Amino acid sequence: MELDHVGIAVADLDRARVRWESLLGPSVAPPEEVPSNRVRVAFLSAGDTHVELLTPTDAESPVARFLSVRGEGLHHVAFRVPSVDRALDDLARRGERVVDRTGRPGARGRRVGFAHPAAFGGVLVEFVEGP
Amino acid sequence: MELDHVGIAVADLDRARVRWESLLGPSVAPPEEVPSNRVRVAFLSAGDTHVELLTPTDAESPVARFLSVRGEGLHHVAFRVPSVDRALDDLARRGERVVDRTGRPGARGRRVGFAHPAAFGGVLVEFVEGP
Repeated sequence: MELDHVGIAVADLDRARVRWESLLGPSVAPPEEVPSNRVRVAFLSAGDTHVELLTPTDAESPVARFLSVRGEGLHHVAFRVPSVDRALDDLARRGERVVDRTGRPGARGRRVGFAHPAAFGGVLVEFVEGP
Repeated sequence: MELDHVGIAVADLDRARVRWESLLGPSVAPPEEVPSNRVRVAFLSAGDTHVELLTPTDAESPVARFLSVRGEGLHHVAFRVPSVDRALDDLARRGERVVDRTGRPGARGRRVGFAHPAAFGGVLVEFVEGP
């Protein structure tokens, strides 16, 4: 299963872009809002995978809660799967907790879904549908 | 700059391997001790990159401190560079903080070095020397 991206929670997307672009080069597209997750995100290339910077668009965003509890830092890790629904289903059927029962619209027009951090020892795992 | 691996701090390496191998398939090699960082690690493939599970070998390990403060979870992100010394030097010359001034022996016989989390907004960045 391929790593699609690593998500990093940031307080200020523009400042974070400057910082990470100095390491990885320019973002692959202008920042994008993802209403289903109440975040604004930017993707930077890192070989065959990406770094995603994400910042909350309002106080109810799960990323706002993350920032207030943990501060800025590594937030999630995302893997590419042929079917998000099937990946979530497989976990649930093994008795693991999931945040999403089925996929929902994510960044870059992709279908995404999250496992619960309890399923992977405190690591928030996202599945991203794609080739 | 390519993503080399994502590091995940775990309390019990054997239990964590079972969990992550169910998602990513078998570890690429038997677990390995890295004395320079006081950890025992296992690598799993995820496309062109890897997931590294790391557990402290003693109470003085920086990963032991991480686990006691934050608990299990995402620990660092590592990028492949042609020269670890140059990558650390570039950061230091831009006034950023580094953990290592020069490279040191890391897992898989590779030369590695860490930036300070302050240099990347709370994210611990490792450089790994390699092609």
